Amino acid sequence: MPNQLLVDPADLTRFTTEVFERAGMPREHAEIEADVLVWANLRGVDSHGVLRIPWYVKNIDDGVFNLNPNIEIEKETAATLLIEGDQAFGPVVTVYAMNKTIEKAREAGVCWTLIRNTTHQGAMAYYSLMAVEEDMAGIAVVCSPPNMATFGSKGKGVHNSPIAIAVPAGERNPPVLDMATSVVAGGKLSLAEDKGEPIPLDWSLDPQGNPTTTPSFDNVLLPFAGPKGSGLAMMFATLSNTMVANPLLEPNITGRAPTPRGVQNSFLVAIDIAAFTDVDEYKENIDRLIAAQKTLPKAEGFDEILVPGEPEYLTQADRSQNGIPLPIGTVDNLRPIAERFGVEMPRPV
Amino acid sequence: MPNQLLVDPADLTRFTTEVFERAGMPREHAEIEADVLVWANLRGVDSHGVLRIPWYVKNIDDGVFNLNPNIEIEKETAATLLIEGDQAFGPVVTVYAMNKTIEKAREAGVCWTLIRNTTHQGAMAYYSLMAVEEDMAGIAVVCSPPNMATFGSKGKGVHNSPIAIAVPAGERNPPVLDMATSVVAGGKLSLAEDKGEPIPLDWSLDPQGNPTTTPSFDNVLLPFAGPKGSGLAMMFATLSNTMVANPLLEPNITGRAPTPRGVQNSFLVAIDIAAFTDVDEYKENIDRLIAAQKTLPKAEGFDEILVPGEPEYLTQADRSQNGIPLPIGTVDNLRPIAERFGVEMPRPV
Repeated sequence: MPNQLLVDPADLTRFTTEVFERAGMPREHAEIEADVLVWANLRGVDSHGVLRIPWYVKNIDDGVFNLNPNIEIEKETAATLLIEGDQAFGPVVTVYAMNKTIEKAREAGVCWTLIRNTTHQGAMAYYSLMAVEEDMAGIAVVCSPPNMATFGSKGKGVHNSPIAIAVPAGERNPPVLDMATSVVAGGKLSLAEDKGEPIPLDWSLDPQGNPTTTPSFDNVLLPFAGPKGSGLAMMFATLSNTMVANPLLEPNITGRAPTPRGVQNSFLVAIDIAAFTDVDEYKENIDRLIAAQKTLPKAEGFDEILVPGEPEYLTQADRSQNGIPLPIGTVDNLRPIAERFGVEMPRPV
Repeated sequence: MPNQLLVDPADLTRFTTEVFERAGMPREHAEIEADVLVWANLRGVDSHGVLRIPWYVKNIDDGVFNLNPNIEIEKETAATLLIEGDQAFGPVVTVYAMNKTIEKAREAGVCWTLIRNTTHQGAMAYYSLMAVEEDMAGIAVVCSPPNMATFGSKGKGVHNSPIAIAVPAGERNPPVLDMATSVVAGGKLSLAEDKGEPIPLDWSLDPQGNPTTTPSFDNVLLPFAGPKGSGLAMMFATLSNTMVANPLLEPNITGRAPTPRGVQNSFLVAIDIAAFTDVDEYKENIDRLIAAQKTLPKAEGFDEILVPGEPEYLTQADRSQNGIPLPIGTVDNLRPIAERFGVEMPRPV
């Protein structure tokens, strides 16, 4: 019995769109949601792909994720936006917000946007790359209730806030970094769970704060580089949660006002390159920067020096052509969803 | 023989100001320079304090650091600034730039500023805290010629670009993170050199790319968390160097147009909290966030959970009272400077 199913990307998009539409989401929202999830799978970021669907559906059932949100611009200056997400699905509000952010950055040179009360946004790289399409640099950061140990602690004190940064290139693929402030993203634990594989000791602690090799969504993630990962996470919280008066960390630590995991706040930035320099020259210099990296002496065990995003572009080229491998654990978890909503399972290639 | 000299902070400021004034810097610039350097020493960030003076003086002699720069705003939009630094001393141009950035953020909600052709800026936290004084969040990032291995390489491909982020608090000290993307800041190697101490193997490679315990300014720094530290450094380069068409990395890697170390580009951001939320509520929430962290279960070996900047505030309180300890190696390196410029050495407390 194979341990994975190779599915057709277009049909996985069809499946995902139908699930969310039948769950009650407007068609155009379901299409955005499906695009963001399948894009993550295409790039090999399976931890942020369709594996999340059952958890999303549970969150709809629990009334946490809002299928028909009232998304509103609450505050606006020449170069800032505050958007209330009304617990919309992350991709729905974030695509809307990034488009507005880009529009304002075109006028003001930069725009800094806060989203309050979004829910899980998927792969943050997606949004930073929206800015790149418009010859801008894009940044996207998120903070959710605590899931990571603060440095010096064995309990959940911060969120492993991911940050994505992307910039345009010329002939090359646009460099794009998308990293959590934990050793690994939480979705990697879910993926290990789906695959039935143990995890390294330095990834997380068990929910009681003890060392563990058992993957669980409830584990306490560990920050990368100790105080650095933990410190970045804390500062990202002060730039997102605190900035929108939706604290998420402290109320969950103290039990004052617990918020369900998956609710989050986020900030987005678009920086118009033309406000600073010539865009074509910028892109040429990025190509040169990438080319120069590849001439460096290689460390032992490395055949090529890859820049941020490059491994994912290679996977994307491969999977677009040959299909997306879903672990059988993921497929098994999607089956009841397909049945519940009367949607045909994604077709093998 | 003691291995350190405890000096009076005010007198160390007097010494530093006099050195730079006699070296040819306008008095008000020398005062800024001294304030930034001694501030780093007060906070225990000795790697960015007066230990750098001999290297700065060498850079004046070499014509790299400019004592009388022509600092100019070259480009401006509602929320962005491009400032040509003319190889000014970092603190001189960066204090000027951060003041302008804050001014514009007051109008536009945010301001994103690029500085081209500054030189070594010292402890970046200083500038992010300037924004905090004005009830804003502050960010400061820098990129210089390569001094760190790109992930997958054993040669210098990126700069260990530090990032500082600071936000206001209420009763508590403002949280402030200041971290390099390397395992340790380069100045920590200089400090180990001054102290005559070996360094851990995971800090750096020797200039030929081999493992080493010998500290040297010319070593190849190693990124924290492998691809994460390396990736952040690369993206910071694309947001600073490339954004001002002063590449610094690629020309040094390929030998096309080598730039002396110490020349750098930088970006600064000020974010007006009032553009998003109530400032007093923001500060209360930051205090609560800090207090909550301290209630978390402690990891083994930890007596208290400290938030970013807290260890430095503790040192600052102590050293302001009791004096700044300078390693004898540092004192020995400052003596010829004192003699050359006819300045009295800093007085012991």
